[in-house]
Amino acid sequence: MEIILEAGYTSIEGGVCAAKGFTANGLNCGLNPDPNKNDLGMIYSETVCDTAAVYTQNKVKGAPILVTKQNLDATGGKARAVIVNSKNANTCNRDGEEKAKQMCSLTAKALGIEANEVVVASTGVIGQILPIEPIRDHVEELAKGLSAENHIEAATAIMTTDTFKKETAVSFSLGGKTVRLGGMAKGSGMIHPNMATTLNFVTTDAAIDVNLLQKALSEVVKVTYNCLSIDGDTSTNDMVCVMANGLSDAPRITEENEDYKIFCRALYLVLMNLTRMLAKDGEGASKLLTCHCKGAKDQETAITLAKSVIGSALFKCAVFGEDANWGRILCALGYAPVDFDVDRVEVAFASVNGRVLVCKDGFGVEFSEEEAAKILSADEICVDIDLHQGDADAKAWGCDLTYDYVKINGDYRS
Amino acid sequence: MEIILEAGYTSIEGGVCAAKGFTANGLNCGLNPDPNKNDLGMIYSETVCDTAAVYTQNKVKGAPILVTKQNLDATGGKARAVIVNSKNANTCNRDGEEKAKQMCSLTAKALGIEANEVVVASTGVIGQILPIEPIRDHVEELAKGLSAENHIEAATAIMTTDTFKKETAVSFSLGGKTVRLGGMAKGSGMIHPNMATTLNFVTTDAAIDVNLLQKALSEVVKVTYNCLSIDGDTSTNDMVCVMANGLSDAPRITEENEDYKIFCRALYLVLMNLTRMLAKDGEGASKLLTCHCKGAKDQETAITLAKSVIGSALFKCAVFGEDANWGRILCALGYAPVDFDVDRVEVAFASVNGRVLVCKDGFGVEFSEEEAAKILSADEICVDIDLHQGDADAKAWGCDLTYDYVKINGDYRS
Repeated sequence: MEIILEAGYTSIEGGVCAAKGFTANGLNCGLNPDPNKNDLGMIYSETVCDTAAVYTQNKVKGAPILVTKQNLDATGGKARAVIVNSKNANTCNRDGEEKAKQMCSLTAKALGIEANEVVVASTGVIGQILPIEPIRDHVEELAKGLSAENHIEAATAIMTTDTFKKETAVSFSLGGKTVRLGGMAKGSGMIHPNMATTLNFVTTDAAIDVNLLQKALSEVVKVTYNCLSIDGDTSTNDMVCVMANGLSDAPRITEENEDYKIFCRALYLVLMNLTRMLAKDGEGASKLLTCHCKGAKDQETAITLAKSVIGSALFKCAVFGEDANWGRILCALGYAPVDFDVDRVEVAFASVNGRVLVCKDGFGVEFSEEEAAKILSADEICVDIDLHQGDADAKAWGCDLTYDYVKINGDYRS
Repeated sequence: MEIILEAGYTSIEGGVCAAKGFTANGLNCGLNPDPNKNDLGMIYSETVCDTAAVYTQNKVKGAPILVTKQNLDATGGKARAVIVNSKNANTCNRDGEEKAKQMCSLTAKALGIEANEVVVASTGVIGQILPIEPIRDHVEELAKGLSAENHIEAATAIMTTDTFKKETAVSFSLGGKTVRLGGMAKGSGMIHPNMATTLNFVTTDAAIDVNLLQKALSEVVKVTYNCLSIDGDTSTNDMVCVMANGLSDAPRITEENEDYKIFCRALYLVLMNLTRMLAKDGEGASKLLTCHCKGAKDQETAITLAKSVIGSALFKCAVFGEDANWGRILCALGYAPVDFDVDRVEVAFASVNGRVLVCKDGFGVEFSEEEAAKILSADEICVDIDLHQGDADAKAWGCDLTYDYVKINGDYRS
């Protein structure tokens, strides 16, 4: 799919290995019975990275989340490697923390680093004991195969019900030096806005103090991953992690100056595009849905309303049916937990096929059903909402609700 | 389906006409192009009724909601008739209030009562102009056909995507006199707990002060309709309305005494059973899902957690697939906005086919997948959750998420 960028930022290849000094790898260790599908991935940095992370806010947290948090707390936000498996979430298991720690120590041993310099993550079925043997028996092979080319192997190792791998990277200029920032992500169900909402790993060769990196990540996540909803379920294992190794030789960012803003925008562009990929590949999705809410009194209001539209099961079904049932948008705005004036709301549908106004001043307007159907037949649909009540705006991303979503989730464990 | 009752309450026929002095009717006036389907219904009481109502909390409110509220405010909670149509919600239309008022005055004229003694409701597509002519041309015929037998005509007139009509009634004893209370309801999409969550009309020949009737209704709705979720969408047009005409000759309830408690329990039983019917007939549903959360520190916690499980799209899909994916239950508990101790949670699946414990102390336990699949193959499934953290409990009702839900909602307007 098309990447959305801005002047000053160039799309580059390489995913999590786009930045200098990062290598990666992935393989099948046997957690996935299909030997052609990777299920274990690794990312490695030549040097220690300033590392920031945001985690799921679900009270039921996966053991890897707890262990990663302990590690980053112990090192003051320093890490050098990521180990991640799919097929098993290692969550709600009595031996979960023990297994997650074993994953760290096995990785550390294979790489010659400290165990608490490892970020660990798992994704898959909840409540099934994670067998450590397949990981133990393959972690050295995984480390040996680390290379800048193998970002693709790592990106495929974290896929669960994803139908395509999600990677993107940009280069930009900081203090006259070229800096790179890239990431990989997995979807594609149990995704709902509540802090981190999927597994995402971002690497950069920028140099930035860990507290500023954490601040940048939290701010950008608020308007990217947290504005994504596939099915309203907030996972137990979600994490977004950014590692900065400083190998670009660009000046270190130590305050919220112009360089910090340029860096934040790069992080936004990478996370926003990964968010769009996650929405496009939502379980069973046939269409990418963007809701752009503008004219709000503040950003919080815009975010809440845009998310409410994206989260409406009824509206998502209507989009699947290419039915311009805009009443369901008004309905979803109306039950969002924020105040706004219904009588000024304007709604339009837009896509590559055109744009049609369907509601003005909170009331329906006459429109051509034929034209609307043509607009809704596109793969990417935008719902434009103008509240006419201020200057703030926000976007949220999601997808339609289809037969395939039900099919995929009716029998996920087998 | 089987009605759940208690000692002292007897199931009786008659729906909204079970109580003395109430008649009803329904017919096709032409809003529904299928002449065999009723689309206009009426309920009438011989004498003025104390009338209480709860309304949707959606900020986008249907015009009939606004007009009913104005009427009941103007009369101090007195009403004698209900007029209700399906196929068109009369919401987000510039002339909506005018049309809703016309429905009241046409009804009043046909019945020889005051316009503000009429409760008006509409359900159907949002944002399409309601043609008043079909209603104007049929309201006299509707009034002429009022009878105690025609509760069925009224109950079918409010059906939208419902596959069966929802009616139930009970009789019970108050001060040595027999009292009757019955109701009808419609589903079956855009249903989510947020005050009233569907159209429901309840009639009784009990005599009760209007302020107590309102209190009873609000309390009972909290643990019945507000604990029902089909799809997470709170409608714009929902209303639960109770009319009490006092014709049973039972002593008037004027304080919160034993009679009040007996009345409240009757109201609970009728609304609870209607709630179960709505869940069972949720759009596309193949299974009725009940989540019973006990051992909570307070009722609010129990309600919130039970609702969160019932509302999880992923868990609903798993139930459709008859897959004992209990991890999704833990996940749904974890993202509910209340505090509880995950490490003490116990989860079991139950149905007519048996009961199986799947989680203890927040961790998975070994269980027979075969046995679990047998339990989940039943039409009605119960998820039993014990928090082991107090004495409060609550139930929530819902259904599985199926291909048919998507199909029904992909093209609802045509």
